[in-house]
Amino acid sequence: MADTITLSKPVADFHVHVRDGDMMKLVVPTIKLGGVSVAYIMPNLVPPLTSVADVLAYKSRLEAVDPSITYVMTLYLSPAVTPAVIHDAAKAGITGVKCYPAGVTTNSEHGVASYVPYYPTFAAMEEEDMVLNLHGECPSAGHIHLLNAEEEFLPTLKDIHTRFPKLRIVLEHCTSAAAIQAVKDCGATVAATITAHHLFLTIDNWAGNSFNYCKPVAKFPADKQALLDAATSGDPKFFFGSDSAPHPIVNKEKGNGAAAGVFTQTHAAAYVAEAFDQLGKLDKIEAFLCDFGRQFYKIREKKAEWSVVLKKEQNVVPPLLGNGASAVVPFKAGEKLNWKVEIVGL
Amino acid sequence: MADTITLSKPVADFHVHVRDGDMMKLVVPTIKLGGVSVAYIMPNLVPPLTSVADVLAYKSRLEAVDPSITYVMTLYLSPAVTPAVIHDAAKAGITGVKCYPAGVTTNSEHGVASYVPYYPTFAAMEEEDMVLNLHGECPSAGHIHLLNAEEEFLPTLKDIHTRFPKLRIVLEHCTSAAAIQAVKDCGATVAATITAHHLFLTIDNWAGNSFNYCKPVAKFPADKQALLDAATSGDPKFFFGSDSAPHPIVNKEKGNGAAAGVFTQTHAAAYVAEAFDQLGKLDKIEAFLCDFGRQFYKIREKKAEWSVVLKKEQNVVPPLLGNGASAVVPFKAGEKLNWKVEIVGL
Repeated sequence: MADTITLSKPVADFHVHVRDGDMMKLVVPTIKLGGVSVAYIMPNLVPPLTSVADVLAYKSRLEAVDPSITYVMTLYLSPAVTPAVIHDAAKAGITGVKCYPAGVTTNSEHGVASYVPYYPTFAAMEEEDMVLNLHGECPSAGHIHLLNAEEEFLPTLKDIHTRFPKLRIVLEHCTSAAAIQAVKDCGATVAATITAHHLFLTIDNWAGNSFNYCKPVAKFPADKQALLDAATSGDPKFFFGSDSAPHPIVNKEKGNGAAAGVFTQTHAAAYVAEAFDQLGKLDKIEAFLCDFGRQFYKIREKKAEWSVVLKKEQNVVPPLLGNGASAVVPFKAGEKLNWKVEIVGL
Repeated sequence: MADTITLSKPVADFHVHVRDGDMMKLVVPTIKLGGVSVAYIMPNLVPPLTSVADVLAYKSRLEAVDPSITYVMTLYLSPAVTPAVIHDAAKAGITGVKCYPAGVTTNSEHGVASYVPYYPTFAAMEEEDMVLNLHGECPSAGHIHLLNAEEEFLPTLKDIHTRFPKLRIVLEHCTSAAAIQAVKDCGATVAATITAHHLFLTIDNWAGNSFNYCKPVAKFPADKQALLDAATSGDPKFFFGSDSAPHPIVNKEKGNGAAAGVFTQTHAAAYVAEAFDQLGKLDKIEAFLCDFGRQFYKIREKKAEWSVVLKKEQNVVPPLLGNGASAVVPFKAGEKLNWKVEIVGL
């Protein structure tokens, strides 16, 4: 395989958190740095985006920072997201609805406790061909804990899929061999995103290291291997969604209650190239990063005025993005990467 | 059950880390505060205690801080701990030898990679009736990770026990149902310590919380239940060893590389009372805290001039022990406990 990969289109990242305000201004410019031109934007702001107007206003704020990115927008599933709102959202060009189980991750306090009340909303989404994005974890309680929370959710995934077989569903940020298998077992309307960091991490890496701590947590070596196998398999059900999650360093360097999330936006495609290269699977990287997600989502996008070249060239991940207490520590900060993202034609 | 428990002897804590220097001066006085008069002292200083002279010098430093405690001393298993050293150690009143697998926990860089070279040492210990204290984890590699590291070690425990059936062995700080079962399956020469914090914690509690992060890590809800069942069972194979591990707050509030260890010394018996009370098993607490360990170790001790009363009375765990960057955050800092340790007769 060559040491230079020229992507025919930039990367499409189907799981992006860029927050709002100053953090948004810090992070949005890094979308392109990571090689990404299509960013699927998650709605878990504070408060969450539960109306069409709020989503569109947020999109305008994003475009004011970097107008060259195609922002694909989502609503936050809550009682406010009625079937009528879904029909309005579809007309307004909103693509998906993100569903957070209550209390499982960053800004999920307003999340879902039961899926049943949302069946009419799911039916409307199916009718409008919108996408349901599932954070697939059950909250910890009784026998459920962080390491089986995803596996315990899989019957719910299958149940929603059975009830709404034409509804396109993405199981977000898969972390377990069981989740990969469940997605394969479902019909073609069910797909999954895989992050960059979960291609590297296991439980040992986040024990005592909050920069590697995210939800869903990275699991066992066999799970990591299942993610690598799926991502490099050429199966179009599995495509890239970074789930890059910027948190100010002060919220990460806390003894008690460190924020969950790994920040990968600045070097998104480089991390993935590193992982694929280690397996000798660089021939599969363009499909995973660029093609399968766009196909599943039927993306209509702005023509990027720039292109992405992945180069095998040593470079060190900087210790921080930004300054002071609100600076963000990138994944593998201070470590050497063998791959680099070059943006050409700007 | 009464709301006041007067222990007929103070608590014996069979797994104590008090470090050296300033940290020792800060922590040794808290042994008594936690209700403890017999402290089994771990040898993982920097450098580790691998000679009889070093152990005895350390004991003198401890006695200079609080002479009223019975310090039961140990050597750190290393190539320096030959059969000849074992015979000397026994003469000098050293009770045990602690074995750390290389690289699994705090100051274990000098630990053991293979047990076979130590068979002559184990034979000498058996002859001298010394105790082998095992940190029972395999280092992470291949399919071994933090959550199965203890279970993967159990065949080694059984193997050493089979080869040296009269050697008294303590599997330290058990954290898994599998370990509890393995200790039960062995003969009467094999026992186990259980900490206070592992009676409360599961994996969810240390995810994003370095103050609850220790080695071995707390595991699943079913494992915690197995520890509670063993501790409250009245089986003399299971007794108290706090594994209280003081780390300066600056080493805990690190994003990357937080120190492993939970500090419980100041409220040791109170935490245990809390856990036993929740199960309605306070009738078993004295045996667990005071009797079974002393019996297994055949402890000869200084007569304590004070006694311990456990009282059901609300109190809040202070946020810190000590000041500044080297202060230590206790387990459940800032939380309310229903039990309190009172020292009577000082």
